[in-house]
Amino acid sequence: MHIASPTLLIDEQKCRANIKKMVEKARSNHLIFRPHFKTHQSKEVGEWFKAEGTTAITVSSLGMAAYFANAGWSEITVAFPVNLRQNDIINDLAGRITLNLLTDNSEVISQLDQVLKHEVNIYIEIDSGAGRTGIPCNDYDRLNALLTAIDAAGKIHMKGFYTHAGHSYNARSARDIMSIFNDTVACMRSVRKWAEQLEFQGEYCMGDTPGCSVGTDFEGIDAISPGNFVFYDVMQTVIGSCNDNEIAVAVACPVVSKRSSTHEICIYGGAVHFSKDSIENGGMNIFGKIVALDKNKWTSPLEGCYVKALSQEHGIVKLSEEQFHRIQTGDVIGVVPVHSCLTAEALGYYQTFEGLRIDHYAQKNRD
Amino acid sequence: MHIASPTLLIDEQKCRANIKKMVEKARSNHLIFRPHFKTHQSKEVGEWFKAEGTTAITVSSLGMAAYFANAGWSEITVAFPVNLRQNDIINDLAGRITLNLLTDNSEVISQLDQVLKHEVNIYIEIDSGAGRTGIPCNDYDRLNALLTAIDAAGKIHMKGFYTHAGHSYNARSARDIMSIFNDTVACMRSVRKWAEQLEFQGEYCMGDTPGCSVGTDFEGIDAISPGNFVFYDVMQTVIGSCNDNEIAVAVACPVVSKRSSTHEICIYGGAVHFSKDSIENGGMNIFGKIVALDKNKWTSPLEGCYVKALSQEHGIVKLSEEQFHRIQTGDVIGVVPVHSCLTAEALGYYQTFEGLRIDHYAQKNRD
Repeated sequence: MHIASPTLLIDEQKCRANIKKMVEKARSNHLIFRPHFKTHQSKEVGEWFKAEGTTAITVSSLGMAAYFANAGWSEITVAFPVNLRQNDIINDLAGRITLNLLTDNSEVISQLDQVLKHEVNIYIEIDSGAGRTGIPCNDYDRLNALLTAIDAAGKIHMKGFYTHAGHSYNARSARDIMSIFNDTVACMRSVRKWAEQLEFQGEYCMGDTPGCSVGTDFEGIDAISPGNFVFYDVMQTVIGSCNDNEIAVAVACPVVSKRSSTHEICIYGGAVHFSKDSIENGGMNIFGKIVALDKNKWTSPLEGCYVKALSQEHGIVKLSEEQFHRIQTGDVIGVVPVHSCLTAEALGYYQTFEGLRIDHYAQKNRD
Repeated sequence: MHIASPTLLIDEQKCRANIKKMVEKARSNHLIFRPHFKTHQSKEVGEWFKAEGTTAITVSSLGMAAYFANAGWSEITVAFPVNLRQNDIINDLAGRITLNLLTDNSEVISQLDQVLKHEVNIYIEIDSGAGRTGIPCNDYDRLNALLTAIDAAGKIHMKGFYTHAGHSYNARSARDIMSIFNDTVACMRSVRKWAEQLEFQGEYCMGDTPGCSVGTDFEGIDAISPGNFVFYDVMQTVIGSCNDNEIAVAVACPVVSKRSSTHEICIYGGAVHFSKDSIENGGMNIFGKIVALDKNKWTSPLEGCYVKALSQEHGIVKLSEEQFHRIQTGDVIGVVPVHSCLTAEALGYYQTFEGLRIDHYAQKNRD
């Protein structure tokens, strides 16, 4: 395969193994599996989930929901607060699939109910500690107000409670993750206990990749919706969710300049290809790790080699002395991204080792 | 105009004023104007430059060069190190426009010369202190080696010297910028003195927006290629290049959730819409400033209001108490981006106040 510009390679085998492992984890814990598709955003990768028996999915926007509804998915959760300005697309989707929405604001419910033409399900979002959106699990006033609003709405059915423990991204070891995971489960159990006193039967769903990768005791949880695990990335290795060899995507980047005084090279691959997430690793702020590319695989990350800076199209890569002498202008190196969701979004398509181009929802009209 | 999802608004009047001001600055300093189009990446915005007499432009990739060549531009500089793996597109462009390339590596020259089917011009890239790419202005061995390689190449003509003083982005006042600008000009003058001793007649071009916005003494410089000034952004106000009212783009974002305990709201607008650049401002790391939108303008940034965090589709906005009570779910607020180049790339099109959709090179196949 000829690489001329930054190209997102996908290792189908690793990706399918990641899917299979999480499917089996859900099954053995008697959990409904609602994988989040915001990481891969791809119809084709979706088929790899279907092959493992997945029937319900999660997405992060209504546009993405429409893309996957058009690809044949019949139950979709939009794990983003209801956007009242997209009633058209909500009604379109609600008319043809089982649509599960999410909110933490009771005011939204009556406004939504007035414009709905079809029935939808709704999750109440719980803030289990991330502090982004959701109702804290002990804020019974807000929970009650929201339950009451949903009860009064004719076309909105209470589906359950949903939480994304995004603070697990602050973990730096499997032990850290486990601690946050256990707190998250405890938070959801306390909501469950309260709701069951009100004789509410519903689903309790949680969704972060670190927690779902490492957690073991899902008692009180009915469903999981992790997303990033499909590819993993450098961030997840630093957090403690996975190891380097489970990462299923890498960006092939041409080498365009060398600087012998610093053992740095410039690659064609910048912020417009990787986005700008970085992570502290080994005392340095890095934007990606470097791998050597082979015909149908890539190596483990090369020691002492990393992306140290990104500008719009430039990536500056620090190499070990050995690698600096091995790599020449005109060569292609691989970069394992810090955040695979944003890198896939930025690049807009995937390429397999067989040279097949795989679709992404955010596909651009250019390379 | 109905805003349903994050939408990049462009204020044509402000944008044209920014263009006119820089065109006049170039003219009054007898500088060739080679504006960098990597910020707007838009044929339509390009026409606003044409209307001011611009005839030569700069871009950051060969694909972008092809896009603008197709839009009628006949002299284009690709201000990115020559990528030997894109010979096809280099040859295609060199056959139909005046193509100026850039390199800092002598090894690239002979390899490029062998595959060229048409003539191209080349700039030697000078590192005036940014430390990204380019030859330090006093590294005469490397400069000589590169000049010799260009001399020996049949189809590659020495065009001049080019520098991007990217370290001006570390400035935090107009005075800081002026100091870096003067150092950059001095660096280019020293190269000029050396090259003129070798009887080399060529062009000396520099390109950073902070320097070109604030600098006054361009003696020894022949051409400028700033890009960001076309829109400016929050980063440029913090650097000291412009004021808030010169920023020509803002993202309209629906409000989807409110949290009264913190006076924070959640907007539909995240890392996939803004990318992830942030800047320290007033002791906080911010991802954008908040403005109120009117039919055909937006206000100055609202005091005490800023984007404090971005995840994939969520933006978390801290509001003043007053604004928190004014803004409701279902409303639309404006966000002035930290880095307009990356935000435009992420959103992929512009919308004018008249509701016209303006093309971007990175346009996506979805909203």
